Amino acid sequence: MDREHTRSLLEQVAAGTLTVDEAVERLRLEPFEDLGFAKVDHHRHLRQGTAEVIYGAGKTPEQIIAIADAMRRQGEGTILITRLSQEAADKVGAVHPLDYHPMGRIGIVGRMPEIDGIGTIVVASGGTSDMMVAEEAALTAQALGNEVLRLYDVGVAGIHRTLSHAKELMEARVVISVAGMEGALTSVLGGLVDCPVIGVPTSVGYGAAFGGLSALLSMLNACASGVSVVNIDNGFGAGYLASRINHMEGKR
Amino acid sequence: MDREHTRSLLEQVAAGTLTVDEAVERLRLEPFEDLGFAKVDHHRHLRQGTAEVIYGAGKTPEQIIAIADAMRRQGEGTILITRLSQEAADKVGAVHPLDYHPMGRIGIVGRMPEIDGIGTIVVASGGTSDMMVAEEAALTAQALGNEVLRLYDVGVAGIHRTLSHAKELMEARVVISVAGMEGALTSVLGGLVDCPVIGVPTSVGYGAAFGGLSALLSMLNACASGVSVVNIDNGFGAGYLASRINHMEGKR
Amino acid sequence: MDREHTRSLLEQVAAGTLTVDEAVERLRLEPFEDLGFAKVDHHRHLRQGTAEVIYGAGKTPEQIIAIADAMRRQGEGTILITRLSQEAADKVGAVHPLDYHPMGRIGIVGRMPEIDGIGTIVVASGGTSDMMVAEEAALTAQALGNEVLRLYDVGVAGIHRTLSHAKELMEARVVISVAGMEGALTSVLGGLVDCPVIGVPTSVGYGAAFGGLSALLSMLNACASGVSVVNIDNGFGAGYLASRINHMEGKR
Amino acid sequence: MDREHTRSLLEQVAAGTLTVDEAVERLRLEPFEDLGFAKVDHHRHLRQGTAEVIYGAGKTPEQIIAIADAMRRQGEGTILITRLSQEAADKVGAVHPLDYHPMGRIGIVGRMPEIDGIGTIVVASGGTSDMMVAEEAALTAQALGNEVLRLYDVGVAGIHRTLSHAKELMEARVVISVAGMEGALTSVLGGLVDCPVIGVPTSVGYGAAFGGLSALLSMLNACASGVSVVNIDNGFGAGYLASRINHMEGKR
Amino acid sequence: MDREHTRSLLEQVAAGTLTVDEAVERLRLEPFEDLGFAKVDHHRHLRQGTAEVIYGAGKTPEQIIAIADAMRRQGEGTILITRLSQEAADKVGAVHPLDYHPMGRIGIVGRMPEIDGIGTIVVASGGTSDMMVAEEAALTAQALGNEVLRLYDVGVAGIHRTLSHAKELMEARVVISVAGMEGALTSVLGGLVDCPVIGVPTSVGYGAAFGGLSALLSMLNACASGVSVVNIDNGFGAGYLASRINHMEGKR
Amino acid sequence: MDREHTRSLLEQVAAGTLTVDEAVERLRLEPFEDLGFAKVDHHRHLRQGTAEVIYGAGKTPEQIIAIADAMRRQGEGTILITRLSQEAADKVGAVHPLDYHPMGRIGIVGRMPEIDGIGTIVVASGGTSDMMVAEEAALTAQALGNEVLRLYDVGVAGIHRTLSHAKELMEARVVISVAGMEGALTSVLGGLVDCPVIGVPTSVGYGAAFGGLSALLSMLNACASGVSVVNIDNGFGAGYLASRINHMEGKR
Amino acid sequence: MDREHTRSLLEQVAAGTLTVDEAVERLRLEPFEDLGFAKVDHHRHLRQGTAEVIYGAGKTPEQIIAIADAMRRQGEGTILITRLSQEAADKVGAVHPLDYHPMGRIGIVGRMPEIDGIGTIVVASGGTSDMMVAEEAALTAQALGNEVLRLYDVGVAGIHRTLSHAKELMEARVVISVAGMEGALTSVLGGLVDCPVIGVPTSVGYGAAFGGLSALLSMLNACASGVSVVNIDNGFGAGYLASRINHMEGKR
Amino acid sequence: MDREHTRSLLEQVAAGTLTVDEAVERLRLEPFEDLGFAKVDHHRHLRQGTAEVIYGAGKTPEQIIAIADAMRRQGEGTILITRLSQEAADKVGAVHPLDYHPMGRIGIVGRMPEIDGIGTIVVASGGTSDMMVAEEAALTAQALGNEVLRLYDVGVAGIHRTLSHAKELMEARVVISVAGMEGALTSVLGGLVDCPVIGVPTSVGYGAAFGGLSALLSMLNACASGVSVVNIDNGFGAGYLASRINHMEGKR
Repeated sequence: MDREHTRSLLEQVAAGTLTVDEAVERLRLEPFEDLGFAKVDHHRHLRQGTAEVIYGAGKTPEQIIAIADAMRRQGEGTILITRLSQEAADKVGAVHPLDYHPMGRIGIVGRMPEIDGIGTIVVASGGTSDMMVAEEAALTAQALGNEVLRLYDVGVAGIHRTLSHAKELMEARVVISVAGMEGALTSVLGGLVDCPVIGVPTSVGYGAAFGGLSALLSMLNACASGVSVVNIDNGFGAGYLASRINHMEGKR
Repeated sequence: MDREHTRSLLEQVAAGTLTVDEAVERLRLEPFEDLGFAKVDHHRHLRQGTAEVIYGAGKTPEQIIAIADAMRRQGEGTILITRLSQEAADKVGAVHPLDYHPMGRIGIVGRMPEIDGIGTIVVASGGTSDMMVAEEAALTAQALGNEVLRLYDVGVAGIHRTLSHAKELMEARVVISVAGMEGALTSVLGGLVDCPVIGVPTSVGYGAAFGGLSALLSMLNACASGVSVVNIDNGFGAGYLASRINHMEGKR
Repeated sequence: MDREHTRSLLEQVAAGTLTVDEAVERLRLEPFEDLGFAKVDHHRHLRQGTAEVIYGAGKTPEQIIAIADAMRRQGEGTILITRLSQEAADKVGAVHPLDYHPMGRIGIVGRMPEIDGIGTIVVASGGTSDMMVAEEAALTAQALGNEVLRLYDVGVAGIHRTLSHAKELMEARVVISVAGMEGALTSVLGGLVDCPVIGVPTSVGYGAAFGGLSALLSMLNACASGVSVVNIDNGFGAGYLASRINHMEGKR
Repeated sequence: MDREHTRSLLEQVAAGTLTVDEAVERLRLEPFEDLGFAKVDHHRHLRQGTAEVIYGAGKTPEQIIAIADAMRRQGEGTILITRLSQEAADKVGAVHPLDYHPMGRIGIVGRMPEIDGIGTIVVASGGTSDMMVAEEAALTAQALGNEVLRLYDVGVAGIHRTLSHAKELMEARVVISVAGMEGALTSVLGGLVDCPVIGVPTSVGYGAAFGGLSALLSMLNACASGVSVVNIDNGFGAGYLASRINHMEGKR
Repeated sequence: MDREHTRSLLEQVAAGTLTVDEAVERLRLEPFEDLGFAKVDHHRHLRQGTAEVIYGAGKTPEQIIAIADAMRRQGEGTILITRLSQEAADKVGAVHPLDYHPMGRIGIVGRMPEIDGIGTIVVASGGTSDMMVAEEAALTAQALGNEVLRLYDVGVAGIHRTLSHAKELMEARVVISVAGMEGALTSVLGGLVDCPVIGVPTSVGYGAAFGGLSALLSMLNACASGVSVVNIDNGFGAGYLASRINHMEGKR
Repeated sequence: MDREHTRSLLEQVAAGTLTVDEAVERLRLEPFEDLGFAKVDHHRHLRQGTAEVIYGAGKTPEQIIAIADAMRRQGEGTILITRLSQEAADKVGAVHPLDYHPMGRIGIVGRMPEIDGIGTIVVASGGTSDMMVAEEAALTAQALGNEVLRLYDVGVAGIHRTLSHAKELMEARVVISVAGMEGALTSVLGGLVDCPVIGVPTSVGYGAAFGGLSALLSMLNACASGVSVVNIDNGFGAGYLASRINHMEGKR
Repeated sequence: MDREHTRSLLEQVAAGTLTVDEAVERLRLEPFEDLGFAKVDHHRHLRQGTAEVIYGAGKTPEQIIAIADAMRRQGEGTILITRLSQEAADKVGAVHPLDYHPMGRIGIVGRMPEIDGIGTIVVASGGTSDMMVAEEAALTAQALGNEVLRLYDVGVAGIHRTLSHAKELMEARVVISVAGMEGALTSVLGGLVDCPVIGVPTSVGYGAAFGGLSALLSMLNACASGVSVVNIDNGFGAGYLASRINHMEGKR
Repeated sequence: MDREHTRSLLEQVAAGTLTVDEAVERLRLEPFEDLGFAKVDHHRHLRQGTAEVIYGAGKTPEQIIAIADAMRRQGEGTILITRLSQEAADKVGAVHPLDYHPMGRIGIVGRMPEIDGIGTIVVASGGTSDMMVAEEAALTAQALGNEVLRLYDVGVAGIHRTLSHAKELMEARVVISVAGMEGALTSVLGGLVDCPVIGVPTSVGYGAAFGGLSALLSMLNACASGVSVVNIDNGFGAGYLASRINHMEGKR
């Protein structure tokens, strides 16, 4: 519990306006929330005014519908559902007003939020095969209130195409670099821009790609200059982290 | 080349104050820098007013001395040397004014820069054995102009100690979580704070720690909520990225 | 053969009440059971008064039905069938009185045994996706005569929820910690409680979870303080070991 | 904080015998200890009456001496130092009354504690090469107050030697099975005894032993019947867990 | 070409009964067979009087039928078809006289050969789940003319069952030890018998069995005493090698 | 931009026939193509007069049809489609004149190009199971204008068959060695021929073949003498590289 | 105990010539040896008339000397010491009559045994770097009474050298194929000869040889035709197994 | 034996100028060389007029001196010694005229050969730490008669530096791309040039570089466009293969 809340509670006890029993009970029931933990339930309530998130993988359509139901009853304007299959989307869409994006396997219940992020998040990838993960990242960032620029044709095997977007890349506030196979895009972008670069290895590829291991190791070894990495295929995690950075206020 | 520079050059050609030959030569000699690449040499010149960096591993003391020489002649006030052994430090310190930190294997030539980062970077670790990597991260961030708070006793095996620092953690602008063995600290911190968390797996441990692989995988699998990861033992990379985020300005 | 049994047999031979041939035959037929091996068939007959176990994976419903038949004819009151699919359960249930738990893929033929374990076994997990394995552990422990407390919402990404169950956890006699992805729950619980903690890594996750490898390594590296680990997804093994510990008598 | 302590504190506030400020401060300073966490510092204070533990790896002799100093000033009668090299032992022994066991790399400062464990812990291994890890387990268990029986010649390649100790094994309360290379001993013991078996894979071996990986995987796959596993070479962890189980009281 | 054949050919040239052109052509057409290579086509023609082998995996039923056709036209009495699915067996059986063994996925066209191996080959395994691979080994050995004794209930978790077959095991000429999961059976048998032991790791298991890797490593680390290993699930290879050893003649 | 183009552009500016604004715009729009990069779009336009390539994996038949449409409208005479399933081929073949090779999963739209490669490319493999990858390599090389000789029965387990083709192998300009399982063919060929050998490991095999890892490692370790390796199952890559080498002109 | 021994013992009891107490004691003291286990101590006493073996790795010279002492006092004529360093050999040689072979790190105390193996064991390897392991195999086989033919220049990169020894290889009774790096030699030999081939992968190589893993996997995938594999660098194991096969008698 | 040689030999037999015995003997003594194998000893005699090669790793200075002795007596003008340590070089240099290059661990005995390769081989790398391997490649190519251009500052983290060498890269006949850590350079170069690119992963890096595995996988996954890969740190292999390609003649 934070100091002010505790003090106020103790003053009520000292003043006799709160019984000892009631005070004990309050502390017992909310032992942690009251201790100043601002993030009562960080998984569900990411940011005021933006989206709630339901991780769709491993949930039945019925479970997703029920959770969305509860969220909407609590007045949530935007609910982001990740890893949502077309089949599940059809069922959820029959009950809730759903905007489904099959490429990123993302469903959005309700309206898209206002853009309140500070700058632009660039989502860059090298090929059509990485687009599923890239779209998961891009849609996540959008649903959390960010302006997103997609650059989906910047693979390093045609470096002139990468560089033809140098201006947009260098003006980004955060760059999400999505790449499978050898993951070299992230190294090039890390050397090109001044903002944080979030690498997302994908499981795209075959043979010695080993389900994303090659891209993952590649990106981890490029970490020296402002690059960090999330799990293989974790477009949501990258979009979420990018949004967090893009909402950080400057000096007060 | 950026548009304004190109226009000015072309206008000189149009005005006859620059010959075609001279203009061709300038474009040929600086084909990329002139195209608007602000980061002429991003590896060495990280930020105005903060530190230059020399990656010390694999360099002889003589090479380090020579590079530092050149940098100082160019007027650099602060030079950060990473992965610097005690032996090399002795030799460098005989020539340059060196402040050597053996725990982080970091040497700093010249004065520490003014703090110009926006908030505080917390470097958290769970045990004394991770301190080498944690200090590399902390000293890097300090040499780049950041206020750093070290929390080196917050391992999750004694979760009350982690939580007793909840306030400092929640007030951080960036958290660097340094952990070997099972790397669980990063998961807990990722759930505790609202700011970006940078996980640094360390090679500390034995047996099934497999040189940091266990901590690395653990952190990658905790990536959902604002956590990203750098290479095993890459304290410098984490400190550098944290500084980059901590220097981002807010809305204009 | 134990000494007393051998002596008695030899004395009968010496006394002429047992022929040499009969004695030879007895020793030949039961060479090992007679040597004092109490566990004639430990796989099938786990404990008097509790459940028999059939490992259902790789067995046809017909084979399971036949084995259960034989066990019931021998008077077994409780038969635990693990890794039992819904389809197989339908067929087994048509023949035997089966109570099927689809979440843990466990079927129980006959009555649940009386609780004869000494304390409470807590089965803790962090998310709905680990529930299949957690339920396998919990139902196994129950079928072997233990009181089980399920705590299925104690993932460390929301550490306050973990800690809100501190009292129950600290009063447990054995804690089974079921976790996929980064497996950090086991580290936190290992630091929180004084009783043995059995870690069960699960194959839940994607990308760098590598089918449970991440959680497995993570738990092995947390082994210092009363934690040990069973195979990935081995809920049965954890429940069985927990029951064994929970039935250990104290000082005589 | 536990309910009684909180109530007492609140009652003092209500009675005016404790000021609000003082109450706030107490809660702030001891937020977690007061919440009923019995294990204030579980890593150092393992059990009343037995040994304190210093993990010696990565600590200088000077650090070890200082920590032991502090512990002895607090009145600790027995201090167990693990992973202690002969060189460090020489230095520690010059200052503290040290009993050093080079085979297990264990040093004990002070007197061995009384045996207060309930039964016998058997430490079994198959060859002389695993003895370092086996001794670490055995000495840890002894320093924590347990009677320990060492069976160091029971490798399964000579199964008759394993079985010639069947009686001792079957009378154990906990069995620690230490094995490198193929780790088969643990499977055999797991089938032989009724008590918990703790497998300790060792890094002994060459080639496809891969630093203990072979033994580790082998033991994890033997987990069905009361067997669990700790990290490679983690003799301390096994001895500590065995002691914990061996001190569990029976039904009240 | 062997010396005698070459001499005869050259003598015909010298005698003028063979033209130079014909001699050149013969040498060109059969450059290697003539050099004394007895094994013209070792893959198909394993031993006179026993079976021909068709590796069924990756072949269509039509291809198998055609190959068998050709073999039978060449007078083969026994054809062994491995990795033959039930579906393919149905089609092959409609054309050729096929004896299909679904457990070992083995089909035999024609009569079983006379037993001409010197001793008995024991195929040992620990559980029903390894039976597919064990049967592949056993049927291969039988089809190559060996007497085979199956011991399919000798898993080391019940060591008394293993040992109750000690006599049969010790009288074997070759032992094939088939085991998945931890593969400990091979270590125990290697210590028990005096004849060559061929370990066959199987992919049976889950989690940390890693598709047979655990059993494979385990068996390789048990290699000291007369044990060698074939590929995971390679029952055919073990049966074939065992037959080769079992047909070796003694001193002349 | 190349020097001549730049000079011409600047001269127009100097002459006043091109406004500064227009010159700026041209430089901005084509910053890289103009700099002398001959390979505007190397992925699509491999060689004049040979084939365009569509990587079919992960593309819908509709996408493939549309891309082929665009290519044919640009006048391409030959379009090579890789990783094309039978189902997709049926759809593409209904719209475009397609020659489909199911064994190599390759479709060719339009006419095969004239052979303009310098020598013969030998594609060697050891068994029928590697033929899919071998055919991908062979058809790719043919579609790029090379004469290809297929040697599909040269596995090293029957070394005489390998050697019976020694003449053809030694006359090749490039050898592509396709092998799964142990990949030994590449080592033998590398020692036999004087031309470059490109190893293609395949995912054929089971157990310890680990999806091609065994063959990959084997080939990498045979690299000393003119051998290099491409990704597992990457027949296209090998065929493409072989064609590149086979089209290299000699001394001018 | 075997039936005859048991009967004789019981008859003595029945006859009164053996007291019950004595009979009990005998059974207790020798519970397993008496059960017909011919191999009382198989590790030390490999074969009558040949060599005893001391595994030297991890033993001090003093321990080796003491063990050899005991063996010689028991009348052993030949003692084989494996993994014996030059330093240890110097010390052992000062006490015992030692013939030391530094290439194979093998020491032999006493006389070499008479050759009593049936045929010739060929030890083949491809290069000088594998000679340490090859010599360990060859000397082991010699010390166990076998005639050994060394072929140390038959690497497959020069296949004609391999084949120039075809006659010797094809006349061998057992072939030991020692190879590091890609291990292809074993595949070629497996296809060339009719006798059992024992593959010994070595840790020779660098980079993707991964300490012998490449050769190990390669050999395991060549197992179809009479090839089996022992652990990396396990020359002793191969020599021992080869000797076992080479001493097998034919039909009685 | 080639056809003409055989015919000539047979004709002598037919003419009676060669006895049958002599003909048999010739065929027996040179069974393979005579069969048309041009490469009698490809390892030692790489190309007329260029260098002989001694692989120095694992050889004593004395062995190297002896081999070089033999080569020089056979009239070799240039001998290339790879993996030669400074210590060994000192000893070799005392006997032979040695030019030692410590950076590439290469020694050259005798004169550098004339350049007879067709074009230029570019050896590109990204940092000073990869220079050892790059120099091994470059010196090997030079010693085999090639013109070599070193570009050692073209790492992709500063892509403008890579591109500033675009002209040299695009004019190369073969590019050797040497890179550790993430190996991204190879991908970029593969997209930039039209000639064959040989990737050499290096073991440079730490943590998740895993001894070169990261760079190796990265390069293998970039193989689509004219890129192939050799073993980790195998600079010699790359230089040798590049030389082979660079000496290939064009159309006759």
